[in-house]
Formats: sequence, C-alpha cells, structure tokens
Amino acid sequence: MTQPWTLHEDRALPADPVTRPIAREIYQQTRALPIVSMHGHVPVEWFAEDTQFPDPAELLVVPDHYLLRMIVSQGRYALHQLGVPAIDGSATTEADPRVVWRRFCEHWKAFRGTPTRFWMEHVLVEIFGVTQRPSAESADAIYDQIAAEIATPGFRPRALLDRFDIEVIGTTDPAWASLEHHARLTADGLGQRVLPTFRPDPLLQLDNLTFTHDVLATGAAAGVEVRDYATYLDALRAQRLRFKAAGARATDHGCHTADTTPLPEDDAARLFDAALAGRPVSDAQAAAFAAHMLFQMAQMSTEDGLVMQIHPGVVRGHSTQMTRRYGPDKGYDIPFAVEFTHALRPMLDAFGHHPNFRTIVFTLDEDVYSRELAPLAGVYPAMRLGAPWWFIDSPEAMRRFRETATETAGFGNLSGFVDDTRAFCSIPARHDLARRIDAGYLARLVAEHRLDLDEAVDTAVDLAYRLPLEAYAAR
Amino acid sequence: MTQPWTLHEDRALPADPVTRPIAREIYQQTRALPIVSMHGHVPVEWFAEDTQFPDPAELLVVPDHYLLRMIVSQGRYALHQLGVPAIDGSATTEADPRVVWRRFCEHWKAFRGTPTRFWMEHVLVEIFGVTQRPSAESADAIYDQIAAEIATPGFRPRALLDRFDIEVIGTTDPAWASLEHHARLTADGLGQRVLPTFRPDPLLQLDNLTFTHDVLATGAAAGVEVRDYATYLDALRAQRLRFKAAGARATDHGCHTADTTPLPEDDAARLFDAALAGRPVSDAQAAAFAAHMLFQMAQMSTEDGLVMQIHPGVVRGHSTQMTRRYGPDKGYDIPFAVEFTHALRPMLDAFGHHPNFRTIVFTLDEDVYSRELAPLAGVYPAMRLGAPWWFIDSPEAMRRFRETATETAGFGNLSGFVDDTRAFCSIPARHDLARRIDAGYLARLVAEHRLDLDEAVDTAVDLAYRLPLEAYAAR
Amino acid sequence: MTQPWTLHEDRALPADPVTRPIAREIYQQTRALPIVSMHGHVPVEWFAEDTQFPDPAELLVVPDHYLLRMIVSQGRYALHQLGVPAIDGSATTEADPRVVWRRFCEHWKAFRGTPTRFWMEHVLVEIFGVTQRPSAESADAIYDQIAAEIATPGFRPRALLDRFDIEVIGTTDPAWASLEHHARLTADGLGQRVLPTFRPDPLLQLDNLTFTHDVLATGAAAGVEVRDYATYLDALRAQRLRFKAAGARATDHGCHTADTTPLPEDDAARLFDAALAGRPVSDAQAAAFAAHMLFQMAQMSTEDGLVMQIHPGVVRGHSTQMTRRYGPDKGYDIPFAVEFTHALRPMLDAFGHHPNFRTIVFTLDEDVYSRELAPLAGVYPAMRLGAPWWFIDSPEAMRRFRETATETAGFGNLSGFVDDTRAFCSIPARHDLARRIDAGYLARLVAEHRLDLDEAVDTAVDLAYRLPLEAYAAR
Repeated sequence: MTQPWTLHEDRALPADPVTRPIAREIYQQTRALPIVSMHGHVPVEWFAEDTQFPDPAELLVVPDHYLLRMIVSQGRYALHQLGVPAIDGSATTEADPRVVWRRFCEHWKAFRGTPTRFWMEHVLVEIFGVTQRPSAESADAIYDQIAAEIATPGFRPRALLDRFDIEVIGTTDPAWASLEHHARLTADGLGQRVLPTFRPDPLLQLDNLTFTHDVLATGAAAGVEVRDYATYLDALRAQRLRFKAAGARATDHGCHTADTTPLPEDDAARLFDAALAGRPVSDAQAAAFAAHMLFQMAQMSTEDGLVMQIHPGVVRGHSTQMTRRYGPDKGYDIPFAVEFTHALRPMLDAFGHHPNFRTIVFTLDEDVYSRELAPLAGVYPAMRLGAPWWFIDSPEAMRRFRETATETAGFGNLSGFVDDTRAFCSIPARHDLARRIDAGYLARLVAEHRLDLDEAVDTAVDLAYRLPLEAYAAR
Repeated sequence: MTQPWTLHEDRALPADPVTRPIAREIYQQTRALPIVSMHGHVPVEWFAEDTQFPDPAELLVVPDHYLLRMIVSQGRYALHQLGVPAIDGSATTEADPRVVWRRFCEHWKAFRGTPTRFWMEHVLVEIFGVTQRPSAESADAIYDQIAAEIATPGFRPRALLDRFDIEVIGTTDPAWASLEHHARLTADGLGQRVLPTFRPDPLLQLDNLTFTHDVLATGAAAGVEVRDYATYLDALRAQRLRFKAAGARATDHGCHTADTTPLPEDDAARLFDAALAGRPVSDAQAAAFAAHMLFQMAQMSTEDGLVMQIHPGVVRGHSTQMTRRYGPDKGYDIPFAVEFTHALRPMLDAFGHHPNFRTIVFTLDEDVYSRELAPLAGVYPAMRLGAPWWFIDSPEAMRRFRETATETAGFGNLSGFVDDTRAFCSIPARHDLARRIDAGYLARLVAEHRLDLDEAVDTAVDLAYRLPLEAYAAR
Repeated sequence: MTQPWTLHEDRALPADPVTRPIAREIYQQTRALPIVSMHGHVPVEWFAEDTQFPDPAELLVVPDHYLLRMIVSQGRYALHQLGVPAIDGSATTEADPRVVWRRFCEHWKAFRGTPTRFWMEHVLVEIFGVTQRPSAESADAIYDQIAAEIATPGFRPRALLDRFDIEVIGTTDPAWASLEHHARLTADGLGQRVLPTFRPDPLLQLDNLTFTHDVLATGAAAGVEVRDYATYLDALRAQRLRFKAAGARATDHGCHTADTTPLPEDDAARLFDAALAGRPVSDAQAAAFAAHMLFQMAQMSTEDGLVMQIHPGVVRGHSTQMTRRYGPDKGYDIPFAVEFTHALRPMLDAFGHHPNFRTIVFTLDEDVYSRELAPLAGVYPAMRLGAPWWFIDSPEAMRRFRETATETAGFGNLSGFVDDTRAFCSIPARHDLARRIDAGYLARLVAEHRLDLDEAVDTAVDLAYRLPLEAYAAR
C-alpha cells in the first residue's frame, strides 16, 4: 500500500468480465442523476439554521450508530470514549474530538466487508480528498484535512444540498412538531426541497411513558383540545394536514409489529381514555390499540393522501443497561421476525385498492421478501415494497433484495432507493452504492438475455430517480 | 430495438464465460427430452373435448393469475377490465378479447425481471412466431397472429400434447369427480398420458361451507352411503381406488399448515359427525381434524400406493373484497410461514420408512429448504422434496433452491421438475427454463471442480426427466 | 472417466476468470496454516489410547451420520445393514466391514452436490491416494488400499495429529467426566494440544430421564455431595474449574432453544429439588429451568472465564422409531426455527459487556444471520458469531454465511472456522474447504474493489487461524 489511496471506478460492480462492461454502461446513465432522498433522519435544524459542523468526530463518528456499534463490539472503547455523552452521568465523555477520531481510525480494520467501509471510503476520498487509508498513524493528518474542509462556507448544510445534487430530501418530525424550521425553509425558498414527514409513533403506543404529555402537545400544536378519543383523532387529522401544507408527502410508522387489526370504536375509545387519564393498560391492550391506530392512519391517508411508510420489527434499546446510560439510537436496536401476510390483511383488504391510498412497507427480515411482501406488493395497487433498510442497506443484501423481490413484485411495485440515514455526508455514497448494485443486477439480466439493454437502462433510471418521486407523490 | 425480436440461444444460462459453455453443453442433453408434467391444473375437459381455444385473451391472459395480478397491481385496470367476470354482478366484464389483449400488451414493461416475462416471450416467439415486442402499438398485430394460429387444427389441445412433446401430464380433480373425462381419454388411447390426481381438500376441512354436500357427493361418486366417520373413510378409500384405476399416481393436499398430528379415533369421529350434521366446529377443531386427516391420507397411501403431495402455507383469497367479487384463484393468494419439522413428525415417524409410502412436500417459504425440508428429505426414504412452486418457480428462486436444498437433500431426494400450472401454453417454456437453470447450476459445480461433466449431464437428465417419473410412480 | 481420479488444484474456488486467480493467491497464504480445531467430537480415548483404527468402514462410514443418513434416504439399506448396531436387538448388524464399505461405494452417486462428496474425495485422494471413483466395481480395491494404510503405525491417532498439522483440538466431554484421558494426554505432553470441553446439557434438563443419576455423578466427579440447588451449583462450579485446570477453554450447550431468562432463585431451587427427588416437572417448568441455567452458565463464565458455546435449535431423534432402534446421533436430528433476539437478551443485557465473558452462538437456521445474530454480534463485545454448523457447513451455505453475516457483524466478531466433527479423517478436508470458500469470498471483495488484496490475505489468515485461537482463549 505505498500508492495513494484511490477508489476504483468500477467498485461494487460485478467482477465477471462479461457482466461488468454492461454494468458500467448502465451505471453511466444513473451516476449523475440528482439525488431523491424521500425518507431520512437528517435534523431539519441543520438546513434551517445552516450552521457550520463543529469537527470531524461530531460530523462523521458520533451520529453514526453503524460505526459506533462496530467499535463498541471490539471491546476496547465504550460509547462515552467515542464522544457519546453518558446521560446518566456515570462516565465522563471524551471531550477531545481528535481523540475520538483517532479511536475510529484505529478500528479501520474492523469495518472490512461492511457497508460502513464502503460509505466512509466514498466520504473520505470523494468529499474530503483524503489520500491515505485511515489508521492510528494517519488519523491526525486526516483529521486536519477534514477539519479544514468543514470550516469553509461551501461545507454548510445548504451548500451541501447543491454540492450533493440533492433535489429533494425528507426529514422526520415528531407529530407535535411546530414545523417552524420548515416554515423558515419555505421562507427561504427551500420548502419544496426539504420536506417534513409525520411520525406519530409515541401517540399510538399507550405504554409510552409520556403518552399523555405527547398527546396533549400534539393537540396544542394542532390547535385541538384533546379530551377524548374523538378529539385525539381530530388532533391527528389536523396535524397531518398541517404537515401536508408544509410540504409533507408521507407519514412514518416505526411500529413494533405490522398488525393492522382495527378494534371496535368503543373499545378503542375506552383504552385511549384510560391511557390519557394515566390508568394502566396491559401489554396486550397497548398492542391492540397500536394495531387499531395503524388501521386509522391508513384510513386518514385515504383522506389526506399522505403516503404511509411502515417500518416494523425492531427491539429498540436491546441492552437496557446501555440505553439507560446513553439513550436511544446508539446501536442497540436489534431486529426480530415479524409477520406481514396476516398482519397487513385488514388494512389491505379495506384500502388496498383505494385510489387515494399508498403504503410503502419496509422490513429488516429478508425472509419476508419472497414469502410475503413481494406477493402482496405484486397484487395490491396501493402497496409498494420499500428498499432494503438499515442493516440490509448493504451491497450483498441489496443484491439479495433484487434477486428475491423483483421476480414476484416486479420493479414497478418498489419504492426505488431510500437512504433512511442521519449521516448526512454518507447520502451521496449510499445512493452511489445503490446505483452500482442495481446496475450490476440489471447487467446480469442483460448478460443472461432476460432483459434488453435499453430496458435495463430505463429500469435503472426508474429505481434511482423516477420511482421514489412517484412512490412518494402525495395522492 | 429495430432488429426483429428473437430469443437468445443462451438465455437464462450463467453469464460468466467459463461456466456458460459448460452450461450450454449440459443443456444440449436435456433440451429435447420429452416433457413429464406430473402435477398441474390444466382442465381435463380440454383434452377430453379437444375443442379449439376461443381467442388469444382467453388462452393467454384470463387464466393466468401471475399475469393478472401484475397488471392489477399497476392500478390502471381491475380484473373485470381484463376479462375476468365479476361473479357478484357488480361490474361489467370486458367482452372484447382484443381490448383485453391490448391492456396486457400495454403493461409489458411491468413484467421486466419476472418469470412471466420469460415464459411469455417463449410462448410468443417459439409457439406463435411473434417478431415484435408487445406494446400498445404492436398489440393488434400480435393478436391477429395468435388468433390465426389457434384457429388451426394443429392448435387443438391433443395436437399440442404432441407438439409440446408431453409424454405424460397430470390433471387435478376434485375428490367427487366422476372421472368421465378421464374415461373418455382412456377410450381414446390417452389414458396413460393424461392422469387424474385426487384432491380431497374440501372433505378434510370441517369449516368448508359446503362440507356436508361435498362429503355426500364424494360418497355418491364412490358408491358409498356416508352416514358417519367410518363410512366417510370408506368413501375416501373407495374413491382413491377409482382414481388409481383411472391412472392416478398421486393425491394432492393444499392444506393450510403441514400438521399431521392424528386425533384419537373417537374424537375424530365426534368432530366429523358434528360437521356432517351441520353443527358448528371451532377453528381449533377444524385445524385438528385437518391434521388428523392428513395423517389418515398418509396411512391410505401406504395401502393404495398413491403418492401424497403436500402444498401448505397459503392464505387463499387474501383480499376478501376481491374474492367476493371475482372468486378464488385470481392472484390474491399470499404465502405465510409454515413449520414442517414438528408438523410432519407424526406422519414421518409412523410411515417415513414404509416401503409403500411416498410423500412429496412443497413449500412457498424458502427458509425451510435448508432448515427443515432438506434435512428431512435427506434421511426419510419415503420423503421427496418438491420442486420450487408457484411464486418461487422463477430463475433466481430456482437457483436458490438448488443452492440451498441440494447440499443436504442430495439430487436423488428431489421430485424433479414440476410445473404445477393452469397456463397450458407455458408448459414448454417452464420446463425449458428449469432445464436452463439446472444446466447453469450443474455447470457451476463442474467449473468449480465439485462434479465431473459426465455426472452433471446425468444429473440434468435425472432432474428433467427420470426423477419426476420415478418420484410419482405409484408404489 | 478413463483418466485416473485426481482432485483439481482450484476446486471450490469461484469459476469466474477474474476472481479465480485472486482466490488462488489468497488461498496460497492459508492452505498450509496449522489446523486449529477448537470444537469437535472426536473421542478423547482415541488420542489417549492411540490404538489402530479397526477397518475402513469403522473409520469412514459407521461414525459419519451425514453419510449414513444419505444412504438410508435412498431406501435400499437400513442402518444395521451399514454397520450400526440395532440396540434393541431387533435386527442383526452387518458384521463384514467390506460389505458395509461396498454399500457406501454403491451409493456414490447419491452424494453428488453434497459436502460429504467433497470431504470424502479429499480423504480418499489426499490421505489414502485412491485413484478411482468409488463404485460397486471399485469398492474392494479401495477397501484394500485403505485397510493397508490404516494398519501402518503412521496412521495411529497421535501420528495423525502431526500428519494433519493439528495445532490444537477440542474434544467434548460430559460434565461428570473424570478427565482421566486428558490427564494421560497431559502426562504424555499433549495436554495443550487436546483440550476438554465441558458439556453439561443433561444436568440442565430436568426432564432428562437420568437426571438424578447424572447430577450425582457430576457431584461425585467434582467431590461435592449434591443435596440441593446450592450444592448442585457448587458441583457445577467445581467441575468447570477441574475442566479448566485440565486445559478446557470452553463449555458447550446443546440447548433446545436459546432462552436465557433467569428464574427467581427460590423458584429454581424448588424445581431442582423436585426433579432431584424424582418428582415430575412439566415441560414448561423444564424449559424455564433450562433457560435459567443457561443464564447461570453465563454467570459462571464471567467467574472462571470459560468461553460459552451455544448450539440450539435441533429436534434430536426426530424418528422415535429409529432412535429407539439405533440410539441417538444417527442422522435423525432435524433443525427447527429458533429465536435469538429476545431469547439472548437477559444474558447479553447482564453480561454482554463483561470483560471476562465470551459467548459464541451457533445456528442451523440461516435466517437469523442477517436478522438477529449479526446485529447482536456486531454490538455486544462479549458475543461472537459461530461458524456455519452441521448441515450448513457446506460450500454454498458457507458462502451464504459470508454474504449474510459479514456486512453487519464484520469479520472480527466471528469465531473463525470450527469443524465440529466426529469424523476425524475429514478434519483436514473441512478446514481446506472452508479456506477455499473464504478465499473465494474475499477474492470477490477484491475483484469488486471493496477490499484491497493485502487486507483480504490478512483476513483469510484471521478466519483460518488467528480468530479461532483468539475467540476460544479462556478469559
């Protein structure tokens, strides 16, 4: 490794010498397309306030839970030694971002074969012009190079929207959001470029410890006094419309399971009233209410046309110790098996052919692609199958997705690429990787004479650009 | 796309330049073998009556639920606009087959990457000599070309048996079938070429709404007056023997789960008597009786030697709305996860080494190949693992099947290829595709020096021809 | 097949002409590394007594349940006709090893595409110099060739340790083992080369028919009089320490599920006392106690540093008929789906960050790699993901493991290769195959420019050699 560190033009394209040139040809037609990022977790404040990023560690290490979890798994450093505050005060957070950065660079080997490696290479080389592999030795030089770059005005969030050629980006906002940041963006002419997404999870989970507070806050934001189940639904409806007026195209549901079974309205009202009054509800009651409300959210989508995203199947905060110490979203969320065929049936039976309804369903469990989700998306007009999400948004897993979902769902019933990230700088890398993997899969179809080249190119453009715009078009 | 539309000789063979010539060599040894189609759903009347097919839409669009579901999923046309009658009278069926055909051709893009695309290309080019890609523009010309072809005497069902080189084909017949069509075929010398299959599902499901009627009809067909559980079993036994005498080699069980747990005989008799008398049975009782009867079917197979096919794990009519409107088998059947290891244990423990018993087990859930079905088929002499079925009867999924099932089951414990289709004209395409995929997998084993070429060719012939004949040989 | 039977240098490397030379280069760096076999089932007596193997059938056929099950599945021979004694006296065991060997050779075709074929080829050609394919015709000649070889002093078990270049090998020993064989090995200077493994399954399963006997035997071995739950735990602790003193690095748990939920100590004590006294416990109680004890085993590992291996998810003796006739471990063990995310949570929450704890988790259910085990191993420092085990220790399945586990777990959170076999002569073949598959996967990463060649070689050495040594280092 004495030559400077560069990225190969053909990276992540198939190795086979017949398929690669075809893949290259397809990729050339999508690599320069604008980025459509309809669902993600970049904080809206970054765009609204457009302030400078503080340092390389705060930009690239601390907010990236893929990266944190891999370092933690190696056993040398705990999260507070990587810049994550211990919210229970049990440990002193490493305050020197350079030290945090060194710890990341020391662990470069641990990322071999992971998507973080691929994304981070892209970020370091393509965005920051780094020319050496990260290591204990190179850490400081790389740190300085990044620090200098992020201090320039061209590295403010809004400038990056242009530099990254992001045509549109969705943020995720709590149901009670005032939407003031989005209002400011609209005032600044960015209202159609940075879109809010309505995320009401805490309002649908009766066992949420701050349920009453969250419901009342949502009512306040919506200008609805919530006294009972009927006014609760009114507040949800009103706030959805406020989101839509602010540019929202979609809602997002990080539900535990995908159950959409409605309750009799009286039962739902009784459960809601109990929870609002702070009376205890059982786990089974909370689960039943959550399923009921998923059905209600679908019904409201048929009214207001917001696209309904469903992201089930994760145990949040699997380590209760670490979650108590460091808070949520620190790498301790672990998938589990979730059923869709029976779970989605009430919703799809009721609204699956409704012209105003669109649901995009995501999974972390690859088993369900060929068994459940592709068969469902392949018949119900209202349903699209979401792109590989989170842990499975990686080269091998994206290939498997194409191989297992396409044959039954077809390309046209997919969401197109969705990056779903909070790591802003990784967005171009993630879209680039997806385009490379899609080019490779489509090239194989061409090489196996299962698709003509013109069709493959057209499909590649669909997946990268047209499909996400179309799938997330409010109805 | 100005050149005429043709199919590449090497389609669906691996792209890699080392593997493809080996695959081609293997495929050359199987491509011209006769078709053995031991299980499927082509109506026996077609062969018995040998009448002309009415029009291209009725031949290729209306009966093909793969094709219908994909068009429906695109949201532009409902089933009645594709020629499927609304049985509840709620909509007027499109009466012009040319219009239906145009709607299919308009949707050609939607089939990219699906097996329907592959099969339909084969049908259009190889059977009808079509030279242009389907599209809104080409629809009428293609329609006329097909319509002219199917008006010829050479396109009658019996002539097609010869043209397609179908050595033997199984139909699927209700348990109460009079078998008159099969009798006519026997009289016409086709008795060993078109074989009935005994399908008793409605008789094993106590919650079947027409249970009493179906049981009595079966008794009538069998010449047994069904008064109670004992005479019900007598009727089943008698009717199985009538099927066997008419050439049947197998039974077929589209059961909800794979449970084979027998009940105490008294309990079974009590449940049967209640259902026969029209008294309600619970869901749990119906499920227990269905499991009990699967065990009984296995026992009867040890007596009469009929091969027992098991096809579990599908929610039939997932959209109750659409099923009410258009009836069953219109594309709304959705798989779900089914367990086999515990479920098949009672049956395999009792009969898994019985010299007169053979069961072929199919799945729509690919997970169970490596985890459950291959380990089971790899030890119990009575069990064969069925070919990929329905949604997974596609290029990528058939490859995955070879990759996940073979290492533990071995080739010799498989059913060989089974097309399981009601789309008669697609049968040659389906067998051709399977032979290509098998050639590709075997070629890779050769290219990786895991198998010698002579062994690969011999195995390819087994899978295409010898194994299905042998697996379905009545015992 | 007139040329002599030889093995290709490049067998099991990828066929694609770009990837193969890279794979060959990587493989050259690992092929000659010593074998580290940290977990397996070769009887310790073989090494302690170092006696000659009796005959080719006893060496290669009778102890290999992969091989037996495949022959049985073909329906021609029952286990007693293959040299396995019918322990219920119901059949006469074939006494002539030459006849058994012939029956194996007759079935050579049945092994096409299976790992047994690959391993056995390696054993026959590389170890015994066989030059003809096994068949009915060649069986006797091959038998004579092997018989001559195993009669030489160079074919004693200890000599084979050198010939196979086995640096270290783990045996599996019951919890009540006297460890006398290991003592003899220590006396002979092999104490650090042949290591015991503590396997307490029967002591953790209250429904074990010989529970009281096994518990008392363990107490006796440990020098602890077991009177109650507290002294039972003492006996376990003491015996673990005796194993550790004898060189053990690990415990092994063939538990039914992966549940690790602890009970209140009083409840556990009550259940234990009941079982010790021979009073009946329910299935649910036995399962709850087993989960409780898995948690206790983890706790003891934090005290004594023994690495905790978990191997769940198998129905043992699926055919009760055959298990009654031939005993356990004869090919009738069948996997089933097991959940890990919730099941391991109590243990990982309590000890997942403990500096003295290490658990290696294995699965027979490939679904859980990407969904559960890789996400868990990718964050908890105490957990490693075990190598593909048993049925999935095969070329295609090992590739799938790399493809589905690496992206989320990373290479560094894996166990490295573990052969887990009782077929001693197959150990070099198994390690060789794993090294070839790893070379192929890593070569693809290089060919796709996802990893540099120096990194790929370093990782290959990790997987083959460094990682198993490190993962199984007692803490």
